[in-house]
Amino acid sequence: MRTGTYAPDRCPDTERNPMSVDTQQAPAQLEEDEVRSLDAHWRAANYLSVGQIYLMANPLLTEPLRPEHVKPRLLGHWGTSPGLNLVHTHLNRVIKARDLNALCIWGPGHGGPAVLANSWLEGSYSQTYPDVTRDAAGMARLFKQFSFPGGVPSHVAPETPGSIHEGGELGYSLSHAYGAALDNPDLLVACVIGDGEAETGPLAASWHSDKFLDPVHDGAVLPVLHLNGYKIANPTVLSRLPESELDDLLKGYGHDPIHVTGDDPADVHRSMAHAMDTALDRIAAFQRAAREDGVTERPRWPVIVLRTPKGWTGPAEVDGRPVEGTWRAHQVPLAAVRDNPEHLRQLEQWLRSYRPGELFDADGRPRPQVLACVPEGTRRLGATPHANGGLLLRELPLPPLEKYAVEVDKPGATLHEPTRVLGDMLRDVMAATAGRRDFRLVGPDETASNRLQAVYAASGKAWQAGTLDVDEDLDRHGRVMEILSEHTCQGWLEGYLLTGRHGLFSCYEAFVHIVDSMVNQHIKWLRTTRRLPWRAPIASLNYLLTSHVWRQDHNGFSHQDPGFVDHILNKSPEAVRVYLPPDANTLLSVADHVLRSRDYVNVVVAGKQPCFDWLSMEEAKAHCARGAGIWEWAGTEDGSRAPDVVLASAGDVPTQEILAAAQLLRRYLPGLAVRVVNVVDIARLLPGEEHPHGMSDFEFDGLFTADKPVIFAYHGYPWLIHRLAYRRTGHRNLHVRGYKEIGTTTTPFDMVVSNDLDRYRLVMDVIDRVPGLAVRAAALRQRMEDARQRHHVWIREHGTDLPEVADWTWDG
Amino acid sequence: MRTGTYAPDRCPDTERNPMSVDTQQAPAQLEEDEVRSLDAHWRAANYLSVGQIYLMANPLLTEPLRPEHVKPRLLGHWGTSPGLNLVHTHLNRVIKARDLNALCIWGPGHGGPAVLANSWLEGSYSQTYPDVTRDAAGMARLFKQFSFPGGVPSHVAPETPGSIHEGGELGYSLSHAYGAALDNPDLLVACVIGDGEAETGPLAASWHSDKFLDPVHDGAVLPVLHLNGYKIANPTVLSRLPESELDDLLKGYGHDPIHVTGDDPADVHRSMAHAMDTALDRIAAFQRAAREDGVTERPRWPVIVLRTPKGWTGPAEVDGRPVEGTWRAHQVPLAAVRDNPEHLRQLEQWLRSYRPGELFDADGRPRPQVLACVPEGTRRLGATPHANGGLLLRELPLPPLEKYAVEVDKPGATLHEPTRVLGDMLRDVMAATAGRRDFRLVGPDETASNRLQAVYAASGKAWQAGTLDVDEDLDRHGRVMEILSEHTCQGWLEGYLLTGRHGLFSCYEAFVHIVDSMVNQHIKWLRTTRRLPWRAPIASLNYLLTSHVWRQDHNGFSHQDPGFVDHILNKSPEAVRVYLPPDANTLLSVADHVLRSRDYVNVVVAGKQPCFDWLSMEEAKAHCARGAGIWEWAGTEDGSRAPDVVLASAGDVPTQEILAAAQLLRRYLPGLAVRVVNVVDIARLLPGEEHPHGMSDFEFDGLFTADKPVIFAYHGYPWLIHRLAYRRTGHRNLHVRGYKEIGTTTTPFDMVVSNDLDRYRLVMDVIDRVPGLAVRAAALRQRMEDARQRHHVWIREHGTDLPEVADWTWDG
Repeated sequence: MRTGTYAPDRCPDTERNPMSVDTQQAPAQLEEDEVRSLDAHWRAANYLSVGQIYLMANPLLTEPLRPEHVKPRLLGHWGTSPGLNLVHTHLNRVIKARDLNALCIWGPGHGGPAVLANSWLEGSYSQTYPDVTRDAAGMARLFKQFSFPGGVPSHVAPETPGSIHEGGELGYSLSHAYGAALDNPDLLVACVIGDGEAETGPLAASWHSDKFLDPVHDGAVLPVLHLNGYKIANPTVLSRLPESELDDLLKGYGHDPIHVTGDDPADVHRSMAHAMDTALDRIAAFQRAAREDGVTERPRWPVIVLRTPKGWTGPAEVDGRPVEGTWRAHQVPLAAVRDNPEHLRQLEQWLRSYRPGELFDADGRPRPQVLACVPEGTRRLGATPHANGGLLLRELPLPPLEKYAVEVDKPGATLHEPTRVLGDMLRDVMAATAGRRDFRLVGPDETASNRLQAVYAASGKAWQAGTLDVDEDLDRHGRVMEILSEHTCQGWLEGYLLTGRHGLFSCYEAFVHIVDSMVNQHIKWLRTTRRLPWRAPIASLNYLLTSHVWRQDHNGFSHQDPGFVDHILNKSPEAVRVYLPPDANTLLSVADHVLRSRDYVNVVVAGKQPCFDWLSMEEAKAHCARGAGIWEWAGTEDGSRAPDVVLASAGDVPTQEILAAAQLLRRYLPGLAVRVVNVVDIARLLPGEEHPHGMSDFEFDGLFTADKPVIFAYHGYPWLIHRLAYRRTGHRNLHVRGYKEIGTTTTPFDMVVSNDLDRYRLVMDVIDRVPGLAVRAAALRQRMEDARQRHHVWIREHGTDLPEVADWTWDG
Repeated sequence: MRTGTYAPDRCPDTERNPMSVDTQQAPAQLEEDEVRSLDAHWRAANYLSVGQIYLMANPLLTEPLRPEHVKPRLLGHWGTSPGLNLVHTHLNRVIKARDLNALCIWGPGHGGPAVLANSWLEGSYSQTYPDVTRDAAGMARLFKQFSFPGGVPSHVAPETPGSIHEGGELGYSLSHAYGAALDNPDLLVACVIGDGEAETGPLAASWHSDKFLDPVHDGAVLPVLHLNGYKIANPTVLSRLPESELDDLLKGYGHDPIHVTGDDPADVHRSMAHAMDTALDRIAAFQRAAREDGVTERPRWPVIVLRTPKGWTGPAEVDGRPVEGTWRAHQVPLAAVRDNPEHLRQLEQWLRSYRPGELFDADGRPRPQVLACVPEGTRRLGATPHANGGLLLRELPLPPLEKYAVEVDKPGATLHEPTRVLGDMLRDVMAATAGRRDFRLVGPDETASNRLQAVYAASGKAWQAGTLDVDEDLDRHGRVMEILSEHTCQGWLEGYLLTGRHGLFSCYEAFVHIVDSMVNQHIKWLRTTRRLPWRAPIASLNYLLTSHVWRQDHNGFSHQDPGFVDHILNKSPEAVRVYLPPDANTLLSVADHVLRSRDYVNVVVAGKQPCFDWLSMEEAKAHCARGAGIWEWAGTEDGSRAPDVVLASAGDVPTQEILAAAQLLRRYLPGLAVRVVNVVDIARLLPGEEHPHGMSDFEFDGLFTADKPVIFAYHGYPWLIHRLAYRRTGHRNLHVRGYKEIGTTTTPFDMVVSNDLDRYRLVMDVIDRVPGLAVRAAALRQRMEDARQRHHVWIREHGTDLPEVADWTWDG
């Protein structure tokens, strides 16, 4: 089953790297019987992979293969599977030989059949799913359920034992691997990277993670770059570089490449075993040097470059066209098995080429030779608790909030930068986990810009590259992670959380869209794991979005986008939460809540600029617990009747404008009964049937009334509020102001004026919507209009906000 | 103004690359007077950069600097500016010396002051903005307007002459540069990449673009990797690698590095000039070899590594802390100039250090020595038409659609794969532009998977890496671009469109979220350029989203996300359009429309799986022109009275289910007057005030009625339809079905059943919502419920859809 097309030496440059361990050079270290037993394991995994894609009956081929044994819909990815099986087989060998604590990230997770096959072989599958036994009946179930309605997904997925990584989207394997290795000094994280995935941006960036890996406190990452040459329909870039150029690239990433190349199984087993041993010896030496000898030089960690044919051992040709070793092996090489007798014959021949009789006994149990390389208990890759991180999770030691709370005797009398206040709390969380090392703060070069720099007093920034005397807060052993790649930050944090630790991602609000697609996958993961009883809950993925849309004084339009909240709220409601704390104490309360929570993606939007303190710590806790509530002190209701109008807000800047509007109304229309409502937990606006935090209509009407005008000042795109509240009784009376894509480099107040979110416009909205006010308050309306005009004139001349705005305070 | 901290030789590895051209090795090629005039230009640009950040009066320092000359709000980025000024000065030199046709992409576009300064110096700024004259009055305007309310943004922006790239988000400079170079054989695209940006994923991936650049038909890209050592608050990874490791990396990317290192201006001028000459000589030699000698070996294109201090020539220390050469120089080095006399003194000293009297005459005009290096006319970087691509744009030769139209005698009688039909049309567009070379198709390894492979008959896939005999459709001169990086695809296409050409991006629907943040920036760019009269309209950015949420039979949940439409519809309505053609002919009509359009981002969602043909080409054109309309042939209205219910749909799969529901209703409830409405252009649902395509209430009510139940089957998240239609009179009667995040690897019909979008559920919705039907049609409702149950049982057993569904046809 060789093809003429697979010939690595036909690459333009055949110069070999001196570190290369290939079939020509590899010493025959393995005993022949070990080669045979490794090969038996590999063949068994390959057999089981093909079986999952094709068979719904006759799993052991105890009778000749007939069309009705074959699934009616053939779905799955064969191409990458033999390579994954090879890596799994050889990881088994070294885990057992060295008693390693190991986890593997399967980047080409499309090859679900491979990882499922190995889990079934090692017994971790049956342990997790007792109905899929390690015998003929279980094998039949394993085969039928794969990619079958009601069965299991075709990729490595949350349902797959031993996995923390869905291999569907591609790009995140290596950053996940690094995240898993952080603060796990005894863990080896192998990471198979497909040459397709290697073309993605997130993967390309994450190679530089080695400049952030502490050889003392972190474990090791062993990347296995699998060059099988093709994607769905194209050759891959890396597989078509001259080997010297690829080596330059990997060395440039800080790695020392070890090559394994071939298509003869026995030769490849020998050279893969040698490569694994070489890599693990080097890793052990680096760790020893750093931990015992105090060496601080950054190691050139090994990377294995595995070059084997796509769809290796599958049909060489189908319908006269080469398949093995080409892109045609990507999914299902024989597509018409039920209708085309030649395809059926080829499938049977293919399955029998693995000699199943040698691999499984009559009851379908793997024979001892097949299992010789398989480790025991939690050493098995499908049974490691690191892949079910909730099992290892400890409560985060959170300090009492009162220690950081801002003193608030009366609302709006003082100003604080909310994120700076939070920074003090995070510093103490960092300090309290100094020994346990299970909390990390990540951010794309923005921790200080986001005013969280107090944390540096408890932990510096992880850094293993060169240093200069002028540097500050860099720390070989630091747990603050900063790289200018939102993708890498997200991947690190996901890997860290999925392996049972805690963390926070602080990010500019606009640029968190860079990870829109990554967070989709994480939410999908959580939605699925929440329904799997064997998956223990993990710490939530917490975003602190700051440097937000209303305060981009330095950067303007390119840095203005509040739409991440919209994106998140499209996703599975059981897994997503969004909070917009309006001041420092509410931010503390929300942060405390999200850091304690499990299995959510929490989005917290909060400002870093000085912001009025509205609530005391006690009030803040109560308000955040309700998620939305009336601020009686800010309104003019006397309790004797319904309010004339409700002024509502969500977000720090809108809250300030709403309160300024309330103050204007109190002053100029003292008879108007105004209710002020603040919303922290935005999902509260949804009906209870749509989101676990949603309100009943009774609650909603109690807060917003069923029939009075509601002027809602919202932090983001105004139609989001309508999308959440469209079913409410009083929805027709809801009028929302928010960001409508009008932005540039300008002052804070000019931003709100430009988007019609300013206090003057809000007062005008009240006048326009409360019955009878249009006439009664015509003069006030004109006064408001004049104030907006005054703003426009002033700002063009002075470049600053009107003094009456800049110096405004709450006088309630 | 040297700091002790800037010392490249303190990097761990001081081994020099043999290609390195640094201050120690550079031959003194330049005449002394040329060094002096280059330095004068550079100092002038630096002076003007500082002036923009700080001054609102006294631009020539004709009097001692006083606090009132300084802006009240100091906003901008100094750190990168001197480096950009250096590159611009030296590009000027080589453009003039070699009469180059050049464009520059300024990756560190935060340094807006630098590019504005250079544009003003060369006169392109005054040419574009005549009120900002090249004299003292204009200089005063240039200074005051910068980052000032009502003025110009602080970054390189659409408003900046000579730019196609906003340097705010970071990550896209190099892919933009490649996109600009494609099919522009005589163009040199210089691209400054900051060492911060270089850490991002999109940038890291885009280095491999050199494997797709055709030295025959494409121009050259000259990356200038600017290592100034720091981001906002951290050292950069690449600046802290040993030089040999950085060289390995760049060689691994396929480049040949040329180093320029230093902090002595005269030395750096000499070595930069030498590096530029070396690089351009090599580029010319590679192009000659490919074009004249037929050499096909991939060139190792040069890259210049420029290592100069951050904030070079700025204050060495401020308040006792080092600033020049550190991250503290990132934004505004002296922050308290109006209040702190020492800061004011330092600012004046800093400004005067450039010796403005030598640079500008008494009227503020640049002296001849300053302008000696500046090229003329459209050779100036601020005046090249390639940066205002609409000027170069030609109409795309689009064939008559009838040639590809599917024959439709009666609706629903035949099936076609819509994207495959479109592929034939795209093939002919590709063929018709074979000589002009101004159309490209990009996609992440998915052109064939998306069934557009007919295009290969007209153009193969661009590929300059190694090839094997088994490869198909690879082409050194191809205009189909496939790399497994959505970021790179998007960046290439943006660069291509912005320089005045045409294209289409085909992408899996779920994974287009990978470029959410990139498309944000492109939309922001378009929104701004649409308001700039000097910017000529460019071809729209067209997405074809296929392999969509309802047909992920192979891949399941990870590949299911229809939310890009929601993301796009949050953005500036003047620039965004979304189409959901329900069949092949409507897809042809929509494709024709979007390929003719200008200055939009068009999102087209269409299936690749066999789909019923509903409309003839003529009907399709009329339907698409309306954007939404009644399909009379599908309903049971007799025109004598209002319908009892409206069945509406948008998207191919929902349309099939709606029609199947209409058929069930016709059969079982023949007396019910059913109207069937189809929506292609989703923004039609918005009010006219909210979107240019929005309908008036009169139109809307005419289509959907003001008071009848509307059952709307939508392709994506159902609440989007509510968000668009919440203001409509009959909104209370609108009931939307769509995708609600329930997905896995399963059959097409199981997907719609799981999400309550199936025909049986839609019929039940009608029964539940039409007054009086609940009783009258109770039996039918039960029959529908039974059908859903039958489905659940059947699929678990057979793994396929019910025969009655699989074999369904329209019998209208």
